[in-house]
Amino acid sequence: MRMYDIIAKKRDGHQLTRQELEFAVNGFVGGSVPDYQMSALLMAIYLKGMTEQETAELTDIMAHSGDMVDLSAIQGIKADKHSTGGVGDKTTLVITPIVAACGVKIAKMSGRGLGHTGGTVDKMESVPGTRTALEPEEFFRQVNDIGISVIGQSGNLAPADKKMYALRDVTATVSSIPLIASSIMSKKLAAGSDCILLDVKTGNGAFMKTLDDSIALAQAMVSIGWHNGRKVAALITDMDTPLGHNIGNSLEVMESVQVLKGNGPEDLTQVCYQLAANMLHLAGKGTVEECLSMAKQAVESGAAMEKLRQMFQAQGGDVRVLDDPNQFEKAAYEYAVTAPETGYITQMDTEQVGISSVLLGAGRITKEDSIDYAAGIVLHKKTGDWVEKGECIATFYAQSQDKFQPAEELFCSALSFGQEKPVLPPLVMARITKDGVERF
Amino acid sequence: MRMYDIIAKKRDGHQLTRQELEFAVNGFVGGSVPDYQMSALLMAIYLKGMTEQETAELTDIMAHSGDMVDLSAIQGIKADKHSTGGVGDKTTLVITPIVAACGVKIAKMSGRGLGHTGGTVDKMESVPGTRTALEPEEFFRQVNDIGISVIGQSGNLAPADKKMYALRDVTATVSSIPLIASSIMSKKLAAGSDCILLDVKTGNGAFMKTLDDSIALAQAMVSIGWHNGRKVAALITDMDTPLGHNIGNSLEVMESVQVLKGNGPEDLTQVCYQLAANMLHLAGKGTVEECLSMAKQAVESGAAMEKLRQMFQAQGGDVRVLDDPNQFEKAAYEYAVTAPETGYITQMDTEQVGISSVLLGAGRITKEDSIDYAAGIVLHKKTGDWVEKGECIATFYAQSQDKFQPAEELFCSALSFGQEKPVLPPLVMARITKDGVERF
Repeated sequence: MRMYDIIAKKRDGHQLTRQELEFAVNGFVGGSVPDYQMSALLMAIYLKGMTEQETAELTDIMAHSGDMVDLSAIQGIKADKHSTGGVGDKTTLVITPIVAACGVKIAKMSGRGLGHTGGTVDKMESVPGTRTALEPEEFFRQVNDIGISVIGQSGNLAPADKKMYALRDVTATVSSIPLIASSIMSKKLAAGSDCILLDVKTGNGAFMKTLDDSIALAQAMVSIGWHNGRKVAALITDMDTPLGHNIGNSLEVMESVQVLKGNGPEDLTQVCYQLAANMLHLAGKGTVEECLSMAKQAVESGAAMEKLRQMFQAQGGDVRVLDDPNQFEKAAYEYAVTAPETGYITQMDTEQVGISSVLLGAGRITKEDSIDYAAGIVLHKKTGDWVEKGECIATFYAQSQDKFQPAEELFCSALSFGQEKPVLPPLVMARITKDGVERF
Repeated sequence: MRMYDIIAKKRDGHQLTRQELEFAVNGFVGGSVPDYQMSALLMAIYLKGMTEQETAELTDIMAHSGDMVDLSAIQGIKADKHSTGGVGDKTTLVITPIVAACGVKIAKMSGRGLGHTGGTVDKMESVPGTRTALEPEEFFRQVNDIGISVIGQSGNLAPADKKMYALRDVTATVSSIPLIASSIMSKKLAAGSDCILLDVKTGNGAFMKTLDDSIALAQAMVSIGWHNGRKVAALITDMDTPLGHNIGNSLEVMESVQVLKGNGPEDLTQVCYQLAANMLHLAGKGTVEECLSMAKQAVESGAAMEKLRQMFQAQGGDVRVLDDPNQFEKAAYEYAVTAPETGYITQMDTEQVGISSVLLGAGRITKEDSIDYAAGIVLHKKTGDWVEKGECIATFYAQSQDKFQPAEELFCSALSFGQEKPVLPPLVMARITKDGVERF
């Protein structure tokens, strides 16, 4: 078998066999296939696409290029979720305790924030003392004991994806649906859970800007999962506006706690209920309707909040901050952003809002940057709200005052105003299962 | 400017600017653009194409990546030709002396044979003593003195092409018309002639297998030439059958001499007259019809033969072999290939016939191979001829007898027989000028 022939076959639009994909991926990881051949193949895949079967096999090969996490030491069904990343997206901190409270195990690895989106591990670490690097034994024991643990990615998960992504990143071959889907799903397959719910964000603050692209990505990922023996479904959720009001690490933990205590913002609460219900449904807990009631009940009874508290406590976190947000370390400065004009907020460039929070210190531009857990933005007004000129629409938090002006400039340029109330898209725009697409 | 953006632009089907092409090509040659980015760009070009303007600019940039031969020391119009390579294609040795005899200067660099096709420089070196590496001064002086010199490629012509071709060769991006056209024409532009006639071979012995592909390649090359201030035209000539009867280095020199003495095979003679006439026409010597008469006159008067003799003499060759082919070093062995059946030869796989001659020692499989000037094939029968089973259809020449059997097996498997006389395509199938395509 020659890499040349594999490139030529894909260049001419044909379907690659599992053996050919293995030759390419394993050869690339092992060093026998040079990067210049892999980049030619990746461009051919970008422009000619891949069938569902090819994509599923590519993903499985990528997953098996490193450690396959064995969760068999944990009893019962294990559920995972993945979000394609958004601004103010703290749903993991809400729905994993709900799902765990309903008896489905959560043994989850999460990532850190990069660019304009945050990461669950950073948010967890804003709770003082919280450890996100557990040895497998402790991780398994915690999940067996209390039903939930969320930790940082450890081990050597899907190194093929890491190496391929680094090459895609410099050869303009990132934005290909089969390649994005296989990249995400290779790590999810390697992470070992039985059920995986995908939250595909769509809109100006998401990687996927249009509903159709988001549905296509979700379909590709759902197909990969079922081809490889996992139960997978996806919700397409709106990211034309930040989710909830709080952006920034400890600010997002506070807002997650509000939802779990039953007094969170309406949009975040509804999205979390839908995600949790679909995870429970995948795990065989009943119809989606039944699972929705179950999720609400877990919040209303306080069981979900108790689960969050248990998880942080088990991982060394100071849970006093969960009950009393005033215990969180405070930002040195706060700043009131006022509306530059009167009217409805007709649009928010959510990516720019996310970058504003990074400028305040809440996120990283490069992997090496440190972050400020207390920094961020609390939005008092969002798309669809009427504001009067001079009214406070957001509060900024930062450790130094010089961060406010550039962040405010970017933030305000992200807002559009108008006299007509905009029509907001539904929070959950579509649901993709192995049986098809349901649009809302 | 970033290579990433250039790749993405071409990936999305847009036209690259001259500045972007310069950034990519010069960066690749200079080492600041890594090969994995170049191969991604090349695959994007392969699949998305290039406009005429892009292709012309790419070619000019590639030509200027090395030495640009300055022929201004030679008085008058300088004409060049290029063949895309065929089996038994010895036209350069016939038409350059014709054109020189008609007063147009030939200051030409030629290549060596590789794979199933031969090269003019090897054929010239089969004439004992012939030097094909001249210093520029001697080269210019010879052309000024006698009007003609054909030498091997020297200097650093289009190093960008060399480096890009090496990458294309391993990334399945060779067979792209803009990339083939720019590769060929970059060297022709760098070689300095004013007029360039292209002989694009088509058929089973050629790189381009179909007439449409050949015309497309010819159009791309003609357009590149005129965009860059050169007079360029192309003929599409048949390579479904070897040209003439002789394949092999000294065998082809003998056959060229036959044509120049007026007793060469009909197909070769006619193709050479057409090529010579079109070269003279490009150089402003009259209409194609007028130039055709001029070319015939140069042969009939002996002037063209005398020009060939002068050239070899000037370059140190023993011209006695030109007048008496028996003076050529002979192959140690010859072998008669007989017809395996009775009927018309309906088809010859010309590429396989070429490889048979390589197996006899007449060519190179790799660049390092040495060649045997006396080895080769004389065809007594070709496509369209009636043969009786057992009749001698070809004579093989080699330095050792063990070469005959594998060459014969391949040669015979290249022939098809039938009871119906095949319809032969015209020798010259189309003519491409800056004004358009004329099909014959």
